[in-house]
Amino acid sequence: SVALFGVVDAGVARYSQGGLGKTMLDTSGLGPSSLGFRGTEDLGGGLSAHFWLEAALLNDVGAGSSSGNGNPSTNGGLAFGRRGTVSIAGRFGEVRLGRDTPPSWWNHVVFDPFFTAGPGSGANITSGGGANGFAGANPLSFSRISNTIQYQWGFAPNAQSAIGRGVYVQLMHAFAENAGGAPARGQYSGGRIGYAGGPLNVALSYARSKGPAYAADAARGYSTFESFNLGGSYDIGAARLMAHVGANDSSAPGTRHDHWGLAATINAGPGYIPLAYNAVRQNNATRDGASQIAAGYVYNLSRRTALYASASYIRNRNNGTYTFLGGNGGGQPGLQTAFGAGTPFGSGTGYGMGIRTSF
Amino acid sequence: SVALFGVVDAGVARYSQGGLGKTMLDTSGLGPSSLGFRGTEDLGGGLSAHFWLEAALLNDVGAGSSSGNGNPSTNGGLAFGRRGTVSIAGRFGEVRLGRDTPPSWWNHVVFDPFFTAGPGSGANITSGGGANGFAGANPLSFSRISNTIQYQWGFAPNAQSAIGRGVYVQLMHAFAENAGGAPARGQYSGGRIGYAGGPLNVALSYARSKGPAYAADAARGYSTFESFNLGGSYDIGAARLMAHVGANDSSAPGTRHDHWGLAATINAGPGYIPLAYNAVRQNNATRDGASQIAAGYVYNLSRRTALYASASYIRNRNNGTYTFLGGNGGGQPGLQTAFGAGTPFGSGTGYGMGIRTSF
Amino acid sequence: SVALFGVVDAGVARYSQGGLGKTMLDTSGLGPSSLGFRGTEDLGGGLSAHFWLEAALLNDVGAGSSSGNGNPSTNGGLAFGRRGTVSIAGRFGEVRLGRDTPPSWWNHVVFDPFFTAGPGSGANITSGGGANGFAGANPLSFSRISNTIQYQWGFAPNAQSAIGRGVYVQLMHAFAENAGGAPARGQYSGGRIGYAGGPLNVALSYARSKGPAYAADAARGYSTFESFNLGGSYDIGAARLMAHVGANDSSAPGTRHDHWGLAATINAGPGYIPLAYNAVRQNNATRDGASQIAAGYVYNLSRRTALYASASYIRNRNNGTYTFLGGNGGGQPGLQTAFGAGTPFGSGTGYGMGIRTSF
Repeated sequence: SVALFGVVDAGVARYSQGGLGKTMLDTSGLGPSSLGFRGTEDLGGGLSAHFWLEAALLNDVGAGSSSGNGNPSTNGGLAFGRRGTVSIAGRFGEVRLGRDTPPSWWNHVVFDPFFTAGPGSGANITSGGGANGFAGANPLSFSRISNTIQYQWGFAPNAQSAIGRGVYVQLMHAFAENAGGAPARGQYSGGRIGYAGGPLNVALSYARSKGPAYAADAARGYSTFESFNLGGSYDIGAARLMAHVGANDSSAPGTRHDHWGLAATINAGPGYIPLAYNAVRQNNATRDGASQIAAGYVYNLSRRTALYASASYIRNRNNGTYTFLGGNGGGQPGLQTAFGAGTPFGSGTGYGMGIRTSF
Repeated sequence: SVALFGVVDAGVARYSQGGLGKTMLDTSGLGPSSLGFRGTEDLGGGLSAHFWLEAALLNDVGAGSSSGNGNPSTNGGLAFGRRGTVSIAGRFGEVRLGRDTPPSWWNHVVFDPFFTAGPGSGANITSGGGANGFAGANPLSFSRISNTIQYQWGFAPNAQSAIGRGVYVQLMHAFAENAGGAPARGQYSGGRIGYAGGPLNVALSYARSKGPAYAADAARGYSTFESFNLGGSYDIGAARLMAHVGANDSSAPGTRHDHWGLAATINAGPGYIPLAYNAVRQNNATRDGASQIAAGYVYNLSRRTALYASASYIRNRNNGTYTFLGGNGGGQPGLQTAFGAGTPFGSGTGYGMGIRTSF
Repeated sequence: SVALFGVVDAGVARYSQGGLGKTMLDTSGLGPSSLGFRGTEDLGGGLSAHFWLEAALLNDVGAGSSSGNGNPSTNGGLAFGRRGTVSIAGRFGEVRLGRDTPPSWWNHVVFDPFFTAGPGSGANITSGGGANGFAGANPLSFSRISNTIQYQWGFAPNAQSAIGRGVYVQLMHAFAENAGGAPARGQYSGGRIGYAGGPLNVALSYARSKGPAYAADAARGYSTFESFNLGGSYDIGAARLMAHVGANDSSAPGTRHDHWGLAATINAGPGYIPLAYNAVRQNNATRDGASQIAAGYVYNLSRRTALYASASYIRNRNNGTYTFLGGNGGGQPGLQTAFGAGTPFGSGTGYGMGIRTSF
């Protein structure tokens, strides 16, 4: 069976920070706009074969785009940057090949009531920021990685792989794919182990990757990055409470970023209220950092369609340069490109409201 | 419900003008080749949610492409440049967000028996030409605009929005999306009001936009553009008669283009004969302009599939530089790039025949 | 009726040649990863209309890509580079317009038990190599050509056009689409005639094209290329035996490449063993050339899904620069870019194993 699926999400947003501001038609304020094709074949004997092709959309301008990490389409064409996998599943679990979300990213999504979308996305600050964040060719903090082989246990076959059942495990390795003798830049190895049962879900991830060389790494030709992330949620009926703590670090001095957060999803009428507080602190000389507080409301018109509104406030500390990143490889206000290099970004606010439909 | 839809149109065409000529495998000679995904969800209480993702195709070379206006994919990748919208509709009308055809473009399509496709497309000359036409970043004369919010009254929900029922209204605003303080280049506001009843359809559009600054506008950092278009059609049974009159103008002196046209679609056997005369005149010192006459035949093999042929003659007046533009972001002969800058283009002919199937 | 179809194929491969090596997540090791949309409409009276839009996939990185020949998307966006056609079929055969596989390429696929995919692809060496092969703008050796008009006899309507029934014929012409007076670079004319009946299938192709000018062709502005290919297969029940012989030549001296090969597909359990030997020899001063031997196993898990493994050995002769090309516009190890220009490539091995599912 083959299914066509996706999300189209658009709204109006207003971002302002450091004296700059932008009003825009935004996308992916509640969920990442996407278009995909997936299928499953029962092979008998408990075995099944699967594929999943999922493209990000920037529907405000009609473009396709990846998640911005090793973006497979650099000029706006549709590409399956969110996922491109083939897999085989059985009693042994699932073996999956291709481009997919790495184990080290899932906690950022699962324990964020905003699912890393819109002004309130926790990943605005917890993904690292600066040279240790989305910038550069460091696969560690990426939300999607190419050229991977993956093993999963405790998930439904071909699942979107966020929350498993009972004890669940994800292991991923990405090949550097450099010719013999070249530094293994781009290599990634990571894992995630969790438990989901009753009201509780908790998961721990650890990953290690090799990126472009910093000055101190020039001899060996690559830098190393590490991340860990421990997150959990507990459902008390009227609300789902969430917390996470983690760190990103690299082999360059002063590039460790510690982050933590508390959040909740509170049931309210035909929808819910997402609330989140996140903080990050770097171990550089000036101890740069940021905190973010965000709230919203999601009003479900149906199981597939919702209206939403959210507001978020980022406060940079010291020389922090954290700002609103947008999700889904686009939709961000791009204010950081208007700041001069090295300028502290100050404080900022983001507001958004829109409609999301899925199919 | 989700539907896959589209058009694949290809044929052989011959264009010649100003001593140059080209024979080519052409696309979109009758209708714009496209591939799309759209869906509708009934939310109850008269409300419904909708999405529409539509990509242009250059099937002669296997490429995707937008409509050439703020093209979302600059390197041939598939992108939803024709439309990328999510909307909610009810008794109040429809509110639609994303990339779509602006109100100021629809009259060019609806009152052209060639639907702006192939050698006979009236938009070859009526869209303005030169710096006031497709060229530059002037959103006014674009057939598609990004970052819009739109209101419609009198149309079916999620309609392709050409002809409404009774009194119909379209209002659109496009955000410039420049950071605070920057000139509002790219901003667009336009509307269209019409009436369709019995044999009559008539519609008036007006739009205003801000584009890149001409010399005279350097201080404020943007130019302004205005267009209006009045068109109508009347069905006499054996034929549908059409007429339109309009103008494009900008804040630069001598860039007003007045255009008008008369046309008909004459029923003939299992198909019809499209006939059109269009003219344009610029208010510059040399009073440049052009006229175009076009005729064709469309032979319907079924409701979805047709064979077609058409011929068109463009006569430039004075230093006019009007030529065959092709439709759908491609398929044009590109003769203008072979002329030297500033050379009057003389007269030219275009012939095409092909097959169009839709699904 | 409209159908969504495709292939997702991924595996792990190891290539090594001339002292370099690469381990990678590979795609299209057994069949070309692809995504397509096709449809058929019965027009009555024996007539039918058809379309076929097929995109290549690089699912290891989530990108779309063409077949590398006149690639319609140069930056990773999805494009219908494998095929973009509309056609009309009847008792007279089929007339097809758009981008498609040329007659001169089909024998490379049909009489290769690896179907030009993975390490064992015969086209690694038989497509020519060097300036007469994939390199340059020579449409002759391309596996896909744009701007074509095609006639087919003996094939099912809208067929993938590999093996016909009884006597079958394919004729194709591609327009150069250069403005009047410019050299006809890109023009292609080719044909293929074959017979398929009982256990026997045999086909002969010939094509002629015009490419970029070599030094000797500077005056007329284009070079000419010619190819012929005679291939056949015979089914003896337990196996299908195959052979082919052919040549690529151009108007530049010393660029004729003669190739031949013997191969078999041997039934084995729920699958088959592909075996192939291919050789090529150039008529230049140093008589460069190469031979390749390849073997594999394809284990069918179902009619749609298979596990596969293959191994291949290329031995360059004299200054030969043949290497593993990968299929489907990507997936190749790219070792040739790591060699210095003009360096003989020596001998090399390629291994791959993976999973392919189709839908």
